[in-house]
Amino acid sequence: MELVDLSVPFLRSRRNAKWQRFGSDVIPAWVAEMDFAIAPPIAEALARIEREQDFGYPSYAATVTALAKVFSLRMKERFDWDADAERVQFVSDLVQASFASVMAFADPGDNILLQTPAYPPFRDAILKTGRRLTPHSLRDDGQRFVFDVEALAAAIDSQTRVMIFCHPHNPTGRVYDRAELEAIAQVAIRNDLVVVSDEIHADLVYPGRQHIPLAKISPEIAARTVTITSATKSFNMPGLRCGLMHFGSRALQDRFEARIPPLLLGHPGINGFEATSAAWTQCQPWLDRLMAHLTANRDHLVSTVRSEFPGARIYAPEATFLSWIDFSALKLPGTPFQFFLEKARVGLSAGDTFDVASREFGRLNFATSRAILDEILGRMIEAVRAR
Amino acid sequence: MELVDLSVPFLRSRRNAKWQRFGSDVIPAWVAEMDFAIAPPIAEALARIEREQDFGYPSYAATVTALAKVFSLRMKERFDWDADAERVQFVSDLVQASFASVMAFADPGDNILLQTPAYPPFRDAILKTGRRLTPHSLRDDGQRFVFDVEALAAAIDSQTRVMIFCHPHNPTGRVYDRAELEAIAQVAIRNDLVVVSDEIHADLVYPGRQHIPLAKISPEIAARTVTITSATKSFNMPGLRCGLMHFGSRALQDRFEARIPPLLLGHPGINGFEATSAAWTQCQPWLDRLMAHLTANRDHLVSTVRSEFPGARIYAPEATFLSWIDFSALKLPGTPFQFFLEKARVGLSAGDTFDVASREFGRLNFATSRAILDEILGRMIEAVRAR
Repeated sequence: MELVDLSVPFLRSRRNAKWQRFGSDVIPAWVAEMDFAIAPPIAEALARIEREQDFGYPSYAATVTALAKVFSLRMKERFDWDADAERVQFVSDLVQASFASVMAFADPGDNILLQTPAYPPFRDAILKTGRRLTPHSLRDDGQRFVFDVEALAAAIDSQTRVMIFCHPHNPTGRVYDRAELEAIAQVAIRNDLVVVSDEIHADLVYPGRQHIPLAKISPEIAARTVTITSATKSFNMPGLRCGLMHFGSRALQDRFEARIPPLLLGHPGINGFEATSAAWTQCQPWLDRLMAHLTANRDHLVSTVRSEFPGARIYAPEATFLSWIDFSALKLPGTPFQFFLEKARVGLSAGDTFDVASREFGRLNFATSRAILDEILGRMIEAVRAR
Repeated sequence: MELVDLSVPFLRSRRNAKWQRFGSDVIPAWVAEMDFAIAPPIAEALARIEREQDFGYPSYAATVTALAKVFSLRMKERFDWDADAERVQFVSDLVQASFASVMAFADPGDNILLQTPAYPPFRDAILKTGRRLTPHSLRDDGQRFVFDVEALAAAIDSQTRVMIFCHPHNPTGRVYDRAELEAIAQVAIRNDLVVVSDEIHADLVYPGRQHIPLAKISPEIAARTVTITSATKSFNMPGLRCGLMHFGSRALQDRFEARIPPLLLGHPGINGFEATSAAWTQCQPWLDRLMAHLTANRDHLVSTVRSEFPGARIYAPEATFLSWIDFSALKLPGTPFQFFLEKARVGLSAGDTFDVASREFGRLNFATSRAILDEILGRMIEAVRAR
């Protein structure tokens, strides 16, 4: 199944945010979507809806049940994880899932743990619902970012109720290994925490690493884990809005529903349901092709950054199409985000949106054609040289 | 702009619920969607998304702002109502909007008013959130169903916080007139109620009647009214899931958001946004054509019911493509829903799903071709004769 690059003029002609946010001479490398066409089976699923004028009310019970089973089968096949199709709640997006989880499992004033750097909307889910954010930094061990379990344990107090966990981790690209997951699980169990585990990048793991769902570690951690995920990241269709929450126990789902009735969350549209089903049942060959491309892009990016930006620190991401680069040694004027936007006309994600302490970092999205990636890198190299 | 009937084989081949719920020999006339193709500008808006691969993250702020302005302009043009584009919250569907409103404006144990017969999910929004349902019947004055303002006032007590209001009314098809709306507004103001006004059928008003938005009656009632609506009903695309809430004052919206953070509600998908925009900006000629067809169908239905089912009571609906028929005088075995499903192979909506006291009623959806409507009526006449 072919991976189709979209050209720059085509990408710029679209309405979505990635290519519209900055000026028309800027190459964007920010928001986590890809410059590729959707997989043919997804395009066909959407075309079928239009051909059959299938815009009426779906049989929601049947639709939800069927897609939850597809999810469960895929988790078994991909990760040997027994996700229960009966404990699935569909949502529009994982931001919604985060808000709902925080509101269900913590009261206003309670503490919520979040590892930094972090996907910015997680902060909103904590702060805009009147809960308190307990940040806790990943630790750079000189080889990679690691989860600092001692710091986690030290950050917990009697008001701590929930940990928001991101695995594989955005923006660092870490895929936590079994020992890290076991240690995290122990802390969560010992402190009676609910864990919201964002595993949306689980399909985007590079050779040599393997994704282990947190809920697979033990029945004890499963019973307190809400896994949140979506096909829209790895299959490149975030505009369709379809994600899900999986509750690791009936009791956890009951606690959730006592505060957040399922119908308060609405329903994804028919396009989101059908595209997700097509992705999870028919698009693995496309994903394999994608990962081969992303692996090559990643390796090219890492070696280029290391050779062309002496002092910049980059660890090859173990997952995700995002790289987290520390430019502090370059002593650029302003932040890397500002510098590369103004001088290179490249739009990174700004480090300080993930963590105030990360202002010297930039996040670079390399899910694009090699030609566009080389244009991005060429512009950045040029700007650093001309500084 | 042409109104395109869909044929029975085509309708049956689709996956959505209307034509799949009952056996393959049953003609469905239940759920409120229509047997017509979507309007060409909506089809084109959806085709554009696929052509341009516009599946990325939309610029939500821009998308939401633009569509809220489109809504405001349309309300001005159609109803001379000044809806404020800054007080719009998009939702997936009006069931979600109902749950959110009840949870925002009442506490568990508080009383919520609901006129019966009523759209069944409104009951869920009250009962599944632990609030109390205070039902209050519309009154049949021999000419039509009227809003019984005295009964409304009598049903209110010190724990009453919210009234769920449906206007035009489903299932009776009433379009309340100014005097009724003013009286309702007075009661709501006097008792400090928030009114959730479901106006999703406002576009489907027949000649001779006019829709007046409740929030247009006075600034005082506007300040306590949440108007909920969607283009998906009148433009026949409920599967796309896109609706909105309009708050009649900033203070009301602030109260809402203090309990229901907007991101808890998720976002409609790109298809829902774009289809809604096309509907409200380009599809009035299609709606005019639809209303001409529905008017003729309505008149044909009413005269046929009156001539062929002596004793059955039907008032010509003033709005909606739904008719609310009292079959009690026919003394059918079982409920009308059961009788017509078994003996006529016609699938009405059962009266008792709208109100336990309405078990002798059936709701018949006449938004179909004249040929299918005649098939429905012919089967029903035959079954009653053969009884």
